[in-house]
Amino acid sequence: MRYRFGCHLSYEVKSPTLFVFNIEAARLPRHQNLAEELVISPDYDRRVHVVPGSETRYFAVNAKPGPFTLRYQAKVDLDALHKDPAEIAETPVPEIPLEVLPYLLPSRFVSSDRLASFALREFGRLDRGFERVTAICNWIYDNIDYKRGTSDGETTADESLLLRAGVCRDFSHIAIAFCRALGIPARYVSAYAFGLAPPDFHAVFEAYLDGRWWLFDATRQAALDGLVRIGAGRDAAEIAFASPFGEIEAGPVEVFIERIDAPGENAVRTADAISTDDSAPLPGQ
Amino acid sequence: MRYRFGCHLSYEVKSPTLFVFNIEAARLPRHQNLAEELVISPDYDRRVHVVPGSETRYFAVNAKPGPFTLRYQAKVDLDALHKDPAEIAETPVPEIPLEVLPYLLPSRFVSSDRLASFALREFGRLDRGFERVTAICNWIYDNIDYKRGTSDGETTADESLLLRAGVCRDFSHIAIAFCRALGIPARYVSAYAFGLAPPDFHAVFEAYLDGRWWLFDATRQAALDGLVRIGAGRDAAEIAFASPFGEIEAGPVEVFIERIDAPGENAVRTADAISTDDSAPLPGQ
Amino acid sequence: MRYRFGCHLSYEVKSPTLFVFNIEAARLPRHQNLAEELVISPDYDRRVHVVPGSETRYFAVNAKPGPFTLRYQAKVDLDALHKDPAEIAETPVPEIPLEVLPYLLPSRFVSSDRLASFALREFGRLDRGFERVTAICNWIYDNIDYKRGTSDGETTADESLLLRAGVCRDFSHIAIAFCRALGIPARYVSAYAFGLAPPDFHAVFEAYLDGRWWLFDATRQAALDGLVRIGAGRDAAEIAFASPFGEIEAGPVEVFIERIDAPGENAVRTADAISTDDSAPLPGQ
Amino acid sequence: MRYRFGCHLSYEVKSPTLFVFNIEAARLPRHQNLAEELVISPDYDRRVHVVPGSETRYFAVNAKPGPFTLRYQAKVDLDALHKDPAEIAETPVPEIPLEVLPYLLPSRFVSSDRLASFALREFGRLDRGFERVTAICNWIYDNIDYKRGTSDGETTADESLLLRAGVCRDFSHIAIAFCRALGIPARYVSAYAFGLAPPDFHAVFEAYLDGRWWLFDATRQAALDGLVRIGAGRDAAEIAFASPFGEIEAGPVEVFIERIDAPGENAVRTADAISTDDSAPLPGQ
Repeated sequence: MRYRFGCHLSYEVKSPTLFVFNIEAARLPRHQNLAEELVISPDYDRRVHVVPGSETRYFAVNAKPGPFTLRYQAKVDLDALHKDPAEIAETPVPEIPLEVLPYLLPSRFVSSDRLASFALREFGRLDRGFERVTAICNWIYDNIDYKRGTSDGETTADESLLLRAGVCRDFSHIAIAFCRALGIPARYVSAYAFGLAPPDFHAVFEAYLDGRWWLFDATRQAALDGLVRIGAGRDAAEIAFASPFGEIEAGPVEVFIERIDAPGENAVRTADAISTDDSAPLPGQ
Repeated sequence: MRYRFGCHLSYEVKSPTLFVFNIEAARLPRHQNLAEELVISPDYDRRVHVVPGSETRYFAVNAKPGPFTLRYQAKVDLDALHKDPAEIAETPVPEIPLEVLPYLLPSRFVSSDRLASFALREFGRLDRGFERVTAICNWIYDNIDYKRGTSDGETTADESLLLRAGVCRDFSHIAIAFCRALGIPARYVSAYAFGLAPPDFHAVFEAYLDGRWWLFDATRQAALDGLVRIGAGRDAAEIAFASPFGEIEAGPVEVFIERIDAPGENAVRTADAISTDDSAPLPGQ
Repeated sequence: MRYRFGCHLSYEVKSPTLFVFNIEAARLPRHQNLAEELVISPDYDRRVHVVPGSETRYFAVNAKPGPFTLRYQAKVDLDALHKDPAEIAETPVPEIPLEVLPYLLPSRFVSSDRLASFALREFGRLDRGFERVTAICNWIYDNIDYKRGTSDGETTADESLLLRAGVCRDFSHIAIAFCRALGIPARYVSAYAFGLAPPDFHAVFEAYLDGRWWLFDATRQAALDGLVRIGAGRDAAEIAFASPFGEIEAGPVEVFIERIDAPGENAVRTADAISTDDSAPLPGQ
Repeated sequence: MRYRFGCHLSYEVKSPTLFVFNIEAARLPRHQNLAEELVISPDYDRRVHVVPGSETRYFAVNAKPGPFTLRYQAKVDLDALHKDPAEIAETPVPEIPLEVLPYLLPSRFVSSDRLASFALREFGRLDRGFERVTAICNWIYDNIDYKRGTSDGETTADESLLLRAGVCRDFSHIAIAFCRALGIPARYVSAYAFGLAPPDFHAVFEAYLDGRWWLFDATRQAALDGLVRIGAGRDAAEIAFASPFGEIEAGPVEVFIERIDAPGENAVRTADAISTDDSAPLPGQ
């Protein structure tokens, strides 16, 4: 499926400000024929950094006081891998690659260490495999209300569980916490999400099963095979779409994604397991 | 039913220490024919304080370095009020007596303000009345593990909910938090508990319904009509059985309660609503 | 000194609502010649409750949907007790009356149990007495910024210490936490505060020293001998000026206090120890 | 200076267990002539992972039930860079390399986002540069007690600040939090520490200043030019010396480090700025 997607960002810069942006699609093999255009105005120099492994792309700009805008648009053939969930087992912890193990550790917003008993109590006796992560998503969907304004940039998975409410960021943090507590590596993913209404940057998560990262969305708000991944990291702290170090005023954020090959077509939910990441194969594969 | 009950406490006092004890049965009308004996050795002077309303009895002793022991034993005819739970409605908040309203407020270990959404989400749509509090108890029994060593003297209801484990103290704090969040006054109760194995001071809670305080035990460990109330307060901070202000070493705590009128008889669980407190009648009653 | 003081409150009531108000001056012997007028409109029935000991006065009103206003105004001869701080010792814990001991316990917003090491580390080696509480106030004044908007109704003393900012409510909670951790009973006090700019309900605290409650204001915003006490309780949870149980919209809050006997005179800060409470004398006094 | 160092670890493995170890000295250019010997018994296969950038070395072993021991010993010429602290400026945030920026983010035990006001309040007005980080270390040394048993594996920088106590792990977390809050990248470092008594794995931290990582020890327990770095990460979650995923019993941990070139010589504290890391040079250097 071919998508056109992107975003427009605008700022009023008040003091000299370092901006770090993470808005570009990751350069994954399954993001085929990625064609991109980025226009920033004024046309400041960019410094670029790509995280090895997750292929998350950052660029930094030193902006001067005054208006500052970015327009990113791109096209991609999204060649998501589909598989029968029933065939996907959990990777036994001893077989998890060492470079994947950090995704078992607790992080700023994902206190999986404090939630170990909670996760075991609720999901410890379920059959292991892809379906256990699906069960985690279902539990969150059933028990947490999707409600804007209930969380902020410092809200942790713990707090969301007590508040019983959150947005996509918080749903993902809770899911990641439960996965890690059960010995399933999990990471936070930002994406352009086809079918998301209203359009916005979306947060989902990936769990590492059977030697590969699989996509999940506990909010059920987007089609899993319509997600163009931007960043992947431990939690929301790592992959903000914009991190300004300075005094700024943010204007409206405009995000878009649409099918090119079948304009006007709606997102269809799939029951398949979906992966767009091939970057952490098991040794020997 | 007539009970014999009491406790033996012993301490090695290291520095001059103020002890405040709350081990005596409350002087409630339904604690009939209460006969008590308290022996403390050395025979220090006692200062006595009874909290109006809850009738919780404290006594204070200034102990000198050296061994210090207390032996309290008492007998009582426990005349618990039995009622059909189906007949007990919630008291609408506007009709709650003002002296009962403090039991709607959050307290040190009962952060009912932070758990408002949780409580509404889980119990907000249930029919109002005694059965709603029973539903709270059932939820806690089903979702929290009774496990020694999982909490300490600083554990709050929030933390117990995240840990999914606790002891009678924590079960009561969670239940009280949910009740208060739903507009049902609730308080923490310490008691001699017939049938509790092994014997110990027990913590349960009372909810204010239909103009009266009713007993509940989310742990299901004791018979509700075999509870001889000691203290009633906002949470565990208020009614510790012993509060030493000084340096001491505590010896073993021995607690006992047995039927006198039917020795050897086991505790029988009742499905009735049980109350031993008549002290906060609605105005006009 | 004679003061005229009071408040105007207005609400738009959306659903039938129980209001509990704590806006009336406490009936203390040192609040001499207290003359009061309370006009509520509509003229709903009031239920009244006075807490024995602190003499805090509450009244409750069941309001119907529609506009609802209160006007309270009063006059008082404030006969504050003045004493030389150097003559005021701490009451040794063994001599604290039992009815005062609850003010050593942690409460919802005052986690004195968690701050014990902090308090001992910072104030444990200071000379005991009134000056130690003054040192606590000075430390808070020097280390915490008075800044509106940094706290809300769920902020605890712990959090204010980490944020290094708060308002009068938070300054008082921190001070009370330190006092309790050091074995000094302390309580939260709301007051009409002469000299406070802009005029508002003020929060200060009282510490129990030498058999009496003494006033302190860690914010240094009001004159201690110009405080007309409204409520005294464990922390802000207990003595909100208005607690609505129902759906309402609050209008502006107008608070005023002025000298009658010397109109236009400014508040003068005193170096004396100030007490307006005689209600918890040491046994034998 | 030439050091001989290493550790002996022993375990009783109860169930098949994945161990991840981080006990080997990092392969840094300034760790010259590193000669190592690692004996594990039974002689399980090892999987090896080195984190690009920090050069932190992990190895993983799948251990079977039974006894399991490791003996690591190594020799190194430690060629620490010395520099005059007065010559070391802070790197302005806009000039921080993008691969270093993650060390400005909050992490599991370093809630630098919540401590921003604290850090600004205490250190915001100090002159910028190496000396500001020294001031942070001095503040921690003066305000936090080094006390075993006050923290555990879940203690955060926030909690350590409130408890006013901790061990090397906690001292480092607090310091890192303050640095990050001030815009100074900082990371957690584990090391063999010459002069530490009793010998143990030590935790210190590195701050990124003037285009390079510099070593700091807020505990003042070890000589900065006697630190052989093992791991560098965001906080203690990342670089535990041993992470067992399975059921085990840990035996005693033996750690040693001694001067070879000058046996018996004591550690001498230096006033120089010390760096052993050249791996993140500023672009253009």
